[in-house]
Amino acid sequence: MNTTLTSLNWRYAAKRMNGKQVPSAKLENILESIRLTATSNGLQPFTVLVIEDKKTREELFTAAVKQPQVVEGSHLLVFAAWKRISAEQIDSYFNMVYEERGLEKGSLDQYANFLKRNFAGQTEDQIFNWASKQAYIALGTALVAAAEEKVDSTPMEGFNPDEVDRILGLSEKGMGASSLLALGFRDEAADHMVTAKKVRRPKEGLFVRI
Amino acid sequence: MNTTLTSLNWRYAAKRMNGKQVPSAKLENILESIRLTATSNGLQPFTVLVIEDKKTREELFTAAVKQPQVVEGSHLLVFAAWKRISAEQIDSYFNMVYEERGLEKGSLDQYANFLKRNFAGQTEDQIFNWASKQAYIALGTALVAAAEEKVDSTPMEGFNPDEVDRILGLSEKGMGASSLLALGFRDEAADHMVTAKKVRRPKEGLFVRI
Repeated sequence: MNTTLTSLNWRYAAKRMNGKQVPSAKLENILESIRLTATSNGLQPFTVLVIEDKKTREELFTAAVKQPQVVEGSHLLVFAAWKRISAEQIDSYFNMVYEERGLEKGSLDQYANFLKRNFAGQTEDQIFNWASKQAYIALGTALVAAAEEKVDSTPMEGFNPDEVDRILGLSEKGMGASSLLALGFRDEAADHMVTAKKVRRPKEGLFVRI
Repeated sequence: MNTTLTSLNWRYAAKRMNGKQVPSAKLENILESIRLTATSNGLQPFTVLVIEDKKTREELFTAAVKQPQVVEGSHLLVFAAWKRISAEQIDSYFNMVYEERGLEKGSLDQYANFLKRNFAGQTEDQIFNWASKQAYIALGTALVAAAEEKVDSTPMEGFNPDEVDRILGLSEKGMGASSLLALGFRDEAADHMVTAKKVRRPKEGLFVRI
């Protein structure tokens, strides 16, 4: 059996969590999975806020239509997608590539310039949309990594983005919240979804074989 | 060690593949991981085309700026995101939920009606964007599942969407290609990226702890 499938079958979007703390080693593995996630051109155009602070999560609770996991989990991840990709950010990315791979500085200038032109021609909305999709790849990875650690994770799109951006000061940093992920442990007594059967379209409906 | 991290460290976006066939059992595990992926409200608003047919992949090769993996892999997945979510589709989803969970038909009408109103008020572009993000969660899952099977996978955004939609007849079905994923095996001799060090921002840059 493929471990990924075991993890996916174990997980569900916990509706209620029991307040227990996600141990640091487990949290770090989940974060590392996000860090290692593939993104378009390797640019990782997002920042992930890892919020343990109770007061901040209580503020976000209201902005996230009072979904209990925001405060009943021990950590809330906010995937903040970038709205701007500056020439400096691209240079900084390529400098990291040159250093890590021992390449001659400037040897990838053609590629870097292509990316600079590409992003210079896009609106903030277009870049935010694209960056959000990259963050969703990481979200998919994090769900698998968390489940393997037997940590419950609930992804959320139901929140007031302007409010979340305001509370976390994201707009002035050129970012916006694209999704939230509550991490914690299911409350087996309070969560009526604990025993619910997973419902998915059958393979014949989801896949078209050519 | 968390298996997900081992898989993520093993994988990279293969630039060249060797034409070897991905065995059916491995392919089915990758597809099952996509099927089990979490999506917003469980709606799975995408269809995945699993293209083994060489002629179709040769047509797509040109539309995908001649990225060799399209034809050097053994399968190309096309994540086709939906542009419309009709009341009928929502009903069909809830009927599946009622049946699978043994719930009384109509007991989730309030929830279903909320979703119907929500999608009725959105443009095709908005729905396509949202559905694409859901498909990217599945893309993230598939990358992990493939790596665990030691199958190489290369996600691609570099393609002419109108051309891909035309070749596969997606527009008339109310869908659009949101990303491609080539599956196959790396060509160790031809792919200069085989030995390249993985480059990612360090945790201190990617994460903000609050």
